[in-house]
Amino acid sequence: MRTIFIDRTLSQQPENFLMKHILLLGAGQSASTLIEYLLNLLDTKGWKLSIGDVDEALAQEKGKGKARGLAFNVTDQGQLTNEVKNADLVISMLPARFHMLVANECLKQSKHLVTASYVNDEMRALHVEAEQKGLVFLNECGLDPGIDHMSAMKVIDKIRGEGNELIGFESFTGGLLALESEADNPWKYKFTWNPRNVVLAGQGVVKFIQEGTYKFIPYHRLFRRTEIVHIPKYGEFEGYANRDSLKYLDVYNLRGIRTLYRGTFRRPGYSKAWNVFVQLGATDDTYKMEGVETMTHRGFINSFLSYNPHDSVELKLAHYLNLEMEGEIMYKLKWLGVFSNELVGLKEGTPAQILETILRKKWTLNKEDRDMIVMWHKFTYLDKANENKETEIHSTLVTMGEDRVHTAMSKSVGLPLGIAARLILEDKIQSRGVLIPIIKELYEPIMEELETYGFDFNESCVFD
Amino acid sequence: MRTIFIDRTLSQQPENFLMKHILLLGAGQSASTLIEYLLNLLDTKGWKLSIGDVDEALAQEKGKGKARGLAFNVTDQGQLTNEVKNADLVISMLPARFHMLVANECLKQSKHLVTASYVNDEMRALHVEAEQKGLVFLNECGLDPGIDHMSAMKVIDKIRGEGNELIGFESFTGGLLALESEADNPWKYKFTWNPRNVVLAGQGVVKFIQEGTYKFIPYHRLFRRTEIVHIPKYGEFEGYANRDSLKYLDVYNLRGIRTLYRGTFRRPGYSKAWNVFVQLGATDDTYKMEGVETMTHRGFINSFLSYNPHDSVELKLAHYLNLEMEGEIMYKLKWLGVFSNELVGLKEGTPAQILETILRKKWTLNKEDRDMIVMWHKFTYLDKANENKETEIHSTLVTMGEDRVHTAMSKSVGLPLGIAARLILEDKIQSRGVLIPIIKELYEPIMEELETYGFDFNESCVFD
Repeated sequence: MRTIFIDRTLSQQPENFLMKHILLLGAGQSASTLIEYLLNLLDTKGWKLSIGDVDEALAQEKGKGKARGLAFNVTDQGQLTNEVKNADLVISMLPARFHMLVANECLKQSKHLVTASYVNDEMRALHVEAEQKGLVFLNECGLDPGIDHMSAMKVIDKIRGEGNELIGFESFTGGLLALESEADNPWKYKFTWNPRNVVLAGQGVVKFIQEGTYKFIPYHRLFRRTEIVHIPKYGEFEGYANRDSLKYLDVYNLRGIRTLYRGTFRRPGYSKAWNVFVQLGATDDTYKMEGVETMTHRGFINSFLSYNPHDSVELKLAHYLNLEMEGEIMYKLKWLGVFSNELVGLKEGTPAQILETILRKKWTLNKEDRDMIVMWHKFTYLDKANENKETEIHSTLVTMGEDRVHTAMSKSVGLPLGIAARLILEDKIQSRGVLIPIIKELYEPIMEELETYGFDFNESCVFD
Repeated sequence: MRTIFIDRTLSQQPENFLMKHILLLGAGQSASTLIEYLLNLLDTKGWKLSIGDVDEALAQEKGKGKARGLAFNVTDQGQLTNEVKNADLVISMLPARFHMLVANECLKQSKHLVTASYVNDEMRALHVEAEQKGLVFLNECGLDPGIDHMSAMKVIDKIRGEGNELIGFESFTGGLLALESEADNPWKYKFTWNPRNVVLAGQGVVKFIQEGTYKFIPYHRLFRRTEIVHIPKYGEFEGYANRDSLKYLDVYNLRGIRTLYRGTFRRPGYSKAWNVFVQLGATDDTYKMEGVETMTHRGFINSFLSYNPHDSVELKLAHYLNLEMEGEIMYKLKWLGVFSNELVGLKEGTPAQILETILRKKWTLNKEDRDMIVMWHKFTYLDKANENKETEIHSTLVTMGEDRVHTAMSKSVGLPLGIAARLILEDKIQSRGVLIPIIKELYEPIMEELETYGFDFNESCVFD
């Protein structure tokens, strides 16, 4: 394979072969592991890497003298054109709203593109042109979306390959804390990914299919409709539903399936306490509050409670939401400091922005903290070889962070991106156009290499 | 007064005086009383009236041979131009989204305009030009907004005129049923105004001021935070907050007020039962449901409940929302038929559209039904003449419909519009530009005339 590959590449691109050039846009915390993976390619393959970030010093520091670090502004069209020109492949870790600027430039200059973000309609619209130009525009190639697609499709393809009928798919992912880091934290949680997305999670209606019936849960009931999943060695997790499971009907070709449910894992008890913020309206991001500059944590909570000159904020809250004053939920809230007279520290903001600011004070990883990713799929199928017996496969992935820079989150998002970029530049991927990693030629080599980095995909067949 | 007026008008507009021409756009149910008021002007003043509606037969029928009825399409610019040209004043009862088409044409041809809808930014932007052209563009001149403005500003102006400080304003309006029509209806409610607005009421966040503190209630808690108001002779009413009370800070010039709260009246018990639909997510208007064509009332409710092959929909609902199976709320729901196997009867729809369709089957006025409007304001002020003693004035208006055509709603919306149109055409209003009826020269004569139609504005001073 390698010989053939070299011959073909040499004949097509003689100058570039020894010097593949990757342009990485965005050098923030979640790019740490990705950058280390790419730097390693410079050593082993003799490739080149440019790292562009709004923060030039950060880009240079992350490049460790091996990669070129530069101040990069994606809305500077001249700079975008020049940098894409010099690259063979672009990895965009920019906020998702900037991907189309990059994608259009890649299309114009015929360069491959890799992102970890969801494919939206604009991106999808580039498929035919990208395919015609022989380009790979690979998206949804991080953790969730990314590793979830790969680990799910591997099992789904196997079930179908054996002629069995898939009747149920449930899938949960959670970015959590390693056991020793969660012990003294009543929420068993800190932010390990975009805090804003954690605060806004679940807004809008949740849709899924249960035993052949479409089901809908409004946001304000979501955190009371959780399920418990037990994972051997790691204990119990609590799952709440993600917004739209129905789109996976088409993505995974699941039309006709009886149960389809995707969700997020937290440790048990999280959702009931989080529900306090939802019930108060403290996660609303649609309007700016009044008097934020002088607002305390306590004043923020009080804004959502009735006026009553005789009762404390704690008592009013407990009464309003029917909480035990000395119970677990109030303990979690007190631990967060939401009743303190500390200033929020913002000049203005929506309830969601103010809540995020308060939460960051307690929910930011400290030096000793390690995070943990847990992913769990349940597949239910009728086993043809066994009288169509209803059979389950559980697929579990648990991976730990090393420290607060080399987090499990950074590894889980960065490694699939890096591996995919390498495979594309090594010409090992035949598919073209706008892709996601649900095809075997992508998920198989990526998952194989992930295993060498300690990603342990554990599949077990469960019989009733 | 009248003599002076005739002289001045004659000298300015000799040709038009004997033949003022009103163009009414929209002849639907809520225009019935307005049309009768205007037809009466034809007899007493010798004026002309044209009634335009998409339904030509309806427009002609409502005109009773006295007014010209025509098929009217507001998006037909040629027709709009011609009809406005022949008029001295236009009353728009069209859906609010069409008002700007009419307003721009009125501005171009220098014609007065009257509507019952809220002033939005586009309308407000016409103020200076309308003023310069000597035009009255009067909006918010129906019931709510309309009579609420007038009856509130009358008392506010009086309190301030006496040098007292207003410290609180609370105001509720409800479109309900007359006592004999609500007796055998556990909700004590039917639709007497736009059903869609009733289903969507309160969506978005609710904002008000309570004892000097800004307060916010999210939609999903709104129907549990009600207050009870007692009105002598009519009994108890339950009020829930309207969306944005804060805008009245500027509209009524209330900056610095300690309490500001506007709400909607229902009969006690309505809100707790309505909250079932809110909690289920059945009032959501943001997505279309699946399988609507074959959906039954029961299936609609079941879409929001967990799968459970052993329990009935009733039991699942009662368990989910902690309702007594034999209690008042379940009785109200059963009375509505929400558990029946009747088809909804729509081809597609959002939850809110489906719920509205189910509700219309029970909540439509029948031949014998009469409606009732209840409006109640509470003003709190410091009485200067009495050592700044905190004093309350309650202002109450209760008005009954005559039958299901001459509803209290139709009278309350139509008469202020008709009276205002007359006053403007008689040149009795000096103000110009985009107006709402919060100024004395508007609210005083309108309220006086409303009293002759049985609107009994009852003000009582309450001492602690």
